[in-house]
Amino acid sequence: MSMRREIFEQPTILSHVLNTGWEAMTRIAGELESVAFDYVLIAARGTSDNAARYAKYVLAAHNGIPVALATPSLFTSYRQPPRLNGALVVGISQSGESPDLVAVLAEARRQGRPTLSITNAPHSPLGAESDLIIDIGAGTQEAVAATKTYTASLLAIAMLSTALGAEGQMADLERLPQHAEAVLRSEGQIAEVAEQLTDIGACAILGRGYNHATAFEWALKLQEVTYSLAHPYSTADFRHGPIAVVEPGFPILAIAATGPLLEDMTELLRGLTEEKRALTVAVSNSNDALDTARFGIPLPPVAEWLSPMPAIIAAQLFTYHLGKARGLDTDHPRGLNKVTRTT
Amino acid sequence: MSMRREIFEQPTILSHVLNTGWEAMTRIAGELESVAFDYVLIAARGTSDNAARYAKYVLAAHNGIPVALATPSLFTSYRQPPRLNGALVVGISQSGESPDLVAVLAEARRQGRPTLSITNAPHSPLGAESDLIIDIGAGTQEAVAATKTYTASLLAIAMLSTALGAEGQMADLERLPQHAEAVLRSEGQIAEVAEQLTDIGACAILGRGYNHATAFEWALKLQEVTYSLAHPYSTADFRHGPIAVVEPGFPILAIAATGPLLEDMTELLRGLTEEKRALTVAVSNSNDALDTARFGIPLPPVAEWLSPMPAIIAAQLFTYHLGKARGLDTDHPRGLNKVTRTT
Repeated sequence: MSMRREIFEQPTILSHVLNTGWEAMTRIAGELESVAFDYVLIAARGTSDNAARYAKYVLAAHNGIPVALATPSLFTSYRQPPRLNGALVVGISQSGESPDLVAVLAEARRQGRPTLSITNAPHSPLGAESDLIIDIGAGTQEAVAATKTYTASLLAIAMLSTALGAEGQMADLERLPQHAEAVLRSEGQIAEVAEQLTDIGACAILGRGYNHATAFEWALKLQEVTYSLAHPYSTADFRHGPIAVVEPGFPILAIAATGPLLEDMTELLRGLTEEKRALTVAVSNSNDALDTARFGIPLPPVAEWLSPMPAIIAAQLFTYHLGKARGLDTDHPRGLNKVTRTT
Repeated sequence: MSMRREIFEQPTILSHVLNTGWEAMTRIAGELESVAFDYVLIAARGTSDNAARYAKYVLAAHNGIPVALATPSLFTSYRQPPRLNGALVVGISQSGESPDLVAVLAEARRQGRPTLSITNAPHSPLGAESDLIIDIGAGTQEAVAATKTYTASLLAIAMLSTALGAEGQMADLERLPQHAEAVLRSEGQIAEVAEQLTDIGACAILGRGYNHATAFEWALKLQEVTYSLAHPYSTADFRHGPIAVVEPGFPILAIAATGPLLEDMTELLRGLTEEKRALTVAVSNSNDALDTARFGIPLPPVAEWLSPMPAIIAAQLFTYHLGKARGLDTDHPRGLNKVTRTT
């Protein structure tokens, strides 16, 4: 039961980090403000790469900082790293052990650039290459599929954005643990939707903006835990080609949080449901989107920029119950290890 | 027959651009050298986004320039664009018409940053927002699925890298049209492999380094033209989760060009073929990789950094013949338009 237990630990972890983490975060933000950088380069893999996708939106939209994702093979296999002038180089990794990510931070140091890591293991090789370390404080991960370390990484990014001076975010953050709790209370409803979809093979997952990350992370959980061929798209990219694969009954899972992109997502969902007869599921706090899809998973009235946390908790529960409905061992998925050492 | 015809036009276009395009490219490189920038921010969608993935490797490895991919929704729906200090902002688009890409370049201009577009339509709205324009010179695209505009965009990026001073690339470039011809001559063999895979449903496509782009573009072609659920991964990301979906007989298409990443790819292919009993296909110029996979599609002895061009031509032919074997209209895939206007 470690996957379900770790899903349920999340409100407590979020609450604990929000109650105890500001002192360290404020110190780190202060240090960063004394460093000159024009953009952030993030090295990450797997679940942490999805946290990087979230950072891409939060740091750019709230702090005006552009974020690039590193291509670690340039630093390792090809040994042709780019010049990092102007970059703050950030590694995100639960274990802090993947050699390719460590190599990116080590090269940044060689070039005299500042380094920061966001990790659950401050004393890891990644931590050793970092000028500054944000400890996500998620506690030991026992399940193979990451759940609480993902939301803890997102919270670290949201708190960093706030500590770097983005305004009006504190009240949103304070309500986050209760929104996470609210999602856990709808477990029964989520399990019912998952059971309706027990037999799905491949599926598409749509998200855009802040929830682009959620689409990628939900797809990764479904791949890891249920062996589903789940594939993530931004709604814009989906219209540029992949929409051609949709046949009647094809499952499409969409994260439709209230915000500037909601209307576009709802319109796309309507076409997919009514015209293409797709099997649509909306994870949403908009009644319009929930009504448009074949199945709805409700979200609490969370601010859009923080919605990826409640939304992924709903997606984790969906994934867990889909795995259970299929009789799978959700704690020990085949073919995976907790630490994957890529070079 | 417009898709097949445009696939076959590619050696001629590559040859023509290489024979006539250096003067304009040298002028553009000269202008860029007088502009101060630390990194390149590329806005692109669909096939052009895959060209951006190629640029990420070529410009970083050969010219030391880091490349970030823009998140256009920050510039449009959210109206919270980041500060672009230090950036050269590049749009890549066949048609030059997608409003979200135009918005990214327009914002760059508002911030006083230099802009460049790589397009088949210099007189487009994208061109109008660009200080510098690289005309890819691919001629009118009639097929809905882009083929020749993709290779022409890759060539533009390769030539730009050379004009910006990367050394020892000219001899490789001069041999490119003959390598493209060589792939076209193996059409029969490629068609035979495609016919063996007529009934595949979902599949994974693996590539890394320069050919990370090829994996994404091949997947997009299969989605668009054959409605296959084809999904691209870097081999590193694949090991971090998605590898769990592989069951005996699951189709895995891999681009395995000679270079520093070949050994790792061949090792992964061996495990997938022998232990997981996957239905593996290698597109490769390594006999070892070709022998390891269940089916092989040979590549000419092209330099790794240019291999994405011959490799995608092989993948386009595979896609075309898979569509034909399924009795599909490869020129007019359902649900797609040549110009997709996303905002």
